[in-house]
Amino acid sequence: MNKLVTYLGQKAAQAIDVELMSAQGGFSIDQLMELAGLSVAQAVERAFPLGGAPTAPGELPKNARVLVCCGPGNNGGDGLVAARHLRHFGYAPMVFYPKKSKKPLFTGLMTQLINLDIPFVNEPLAPVLDDALQSSDLIIDALFGFSFSGDVRAPFDQVIQKINDSKRPIVSVDVPSGWDVEQGPIEGKLKIESPAVLVSLTTPKLGCLKFEGTHFVGGRFVPPTLAAKFGLTLPVYERSNQIARL
Amino acid sequence: MNKLVTYLGQKAAQAIDVELMSAQGGFSIDQLMELAGLSVAQAVERAFPLGGAPTAPGELPKNARVLVCCGPGNNGGDGLVAARHLRHFGYAPMVFYPKKSKKPLFTGLMTQLINLDIPFVNEPLAPVLDDALQSSDLIIDALFGFSFSGDVRAPFDQVIQKINDSKRPIVSVDVPSGWDVEQGPIEGKLKIESPAVLVSLTTPKLGCLKFEGTHFVGGRFVPPTLAAKFGLTLPVYERSNQIARL
Repeated sequence: MNKLVTYLGQKAAQAIDVELMSAQGGFSIDQLMELAGLSVAQAVERAFPLGGAPTAPGELPKNARVLVCCGPGNNGGDGLVAARHLRHFGYAPMVFYPKKSKKPLFTGLMTQLINLDIPFVNEPLAPVLDDALQSSDLIIDALFGFSFSGDVRAPFDQVIQKINDSKRPIVSVDVPSGWDVEQGPIEGKLKIESPAVLVSLTTPKLGCLKFEGTHFVGGRFVPPTLAAKFGLTLPVYERSNQIARL
Repeated sequence: MNKLVTYLGQKAAQAIDVELMSAQGGFSIDQLMELAGLSVAQAVERAFPLGGAPTAPGELPKNARVLVCCGPGNNGGDGLVAARHLRHFGYAPMVFYPKKSKKPLFTGLMTQLINLDIPFVNEPLAPVLDDALQSSDLIIDALFGFSFSGDVRAPFDQVIQKINDSKRPIVSVDVPSGWDVEQGPIEGKLKIESPAVLVSLTTPKLGCLKFEGTHFVGGRFVPPTLAAKFGLTLPVYERSNQIARL
């Protein structure tokens, strides 16, 4: 049944986001980002559960090192929230966040991570990011989401190249970074090449129609009236789960 | 192992709350309330899962009617968040919220509920609240939390009396309303008499030491450094769960 969920165009995704946070929707960005980031962390835990050593297929060693790569906007914020929850789940996240937002929400999220002794991997890109990638078991791509268009700009061009080169499993948040939100991966454009897992937020974007990895949807907060207004078929979540697998 | 969690006094509970939301803690109230309310809703779903008719013991009919009784402060806000999640989980919540906060967070939470077609049960207390109680399968007591002291004031005295008289199963949020936060239920004082379920937030309060029903803890966001500072033993959560059963 979940195969029938709506895949959204960029404008519709933006309009839904705006409406949820409008006076008519009543949500604060803190609330939506918290639920989005939690669903990302829970998808990571579902796809890569912590196991004992030696690890079973798909399982990571205890205290698995997760490098959370955060972009400059709200997709990066989802990554910061996910990093916090992953730490509570027993993972050992590190955060790469080269273009830090100065908004209070984001500085607060960073404070929360510092209080959890989560290291921030700082620039320069080489060799610090190289070392972090090499020592990671898993990478979260929270660089760009449904607002992305055009080409990847510095320093994220190098970041994406390094993530691809690392050959580590990748979990992408909402849209694999560098993919066209509606057209998907475009030949010759720099992009995350083959994420193992995708966590779409609210409902997938058109560009992810051909994604062939493990696909979850999170963000269980869209009211049925809003879904009806936009003609959305939302995923079916089980019980109290915050993620649904497509 | 979870039997060893710390039971907190009122001042320590308040100090932890203040510190989490201070510049040093970095949390917004939106974030903490979202996670608290989600854990309440998930505890309800765990304790009273939706079943088909006829219902098994502990199971509620499909679209079970849950009356969420919200007090004037943050405990009431946790209830508002829980009502939203319960609606997404398939329950049919109604909200009784006689002393509505005018803060933007709370008006936003109310807007979210209105957008989900969740009815607000308005005053007068009789017969409207009586009807709502009679038509409910379950009641959430989100009237007063860890800040409560003294006696229950109008109109909540009548509300608590009516909830007790309804004989419906009750889920209390953080502290059963009217219980002394440190001393627990005091003979002769008006209070919620026998909640079936208690969802303590962050860690239980001293007054709940003798609670004998089904006890969950939610609020998986306390950093280990803060726990150490206050000498807390926190519950052990499994995997990515947001609630732990004691």
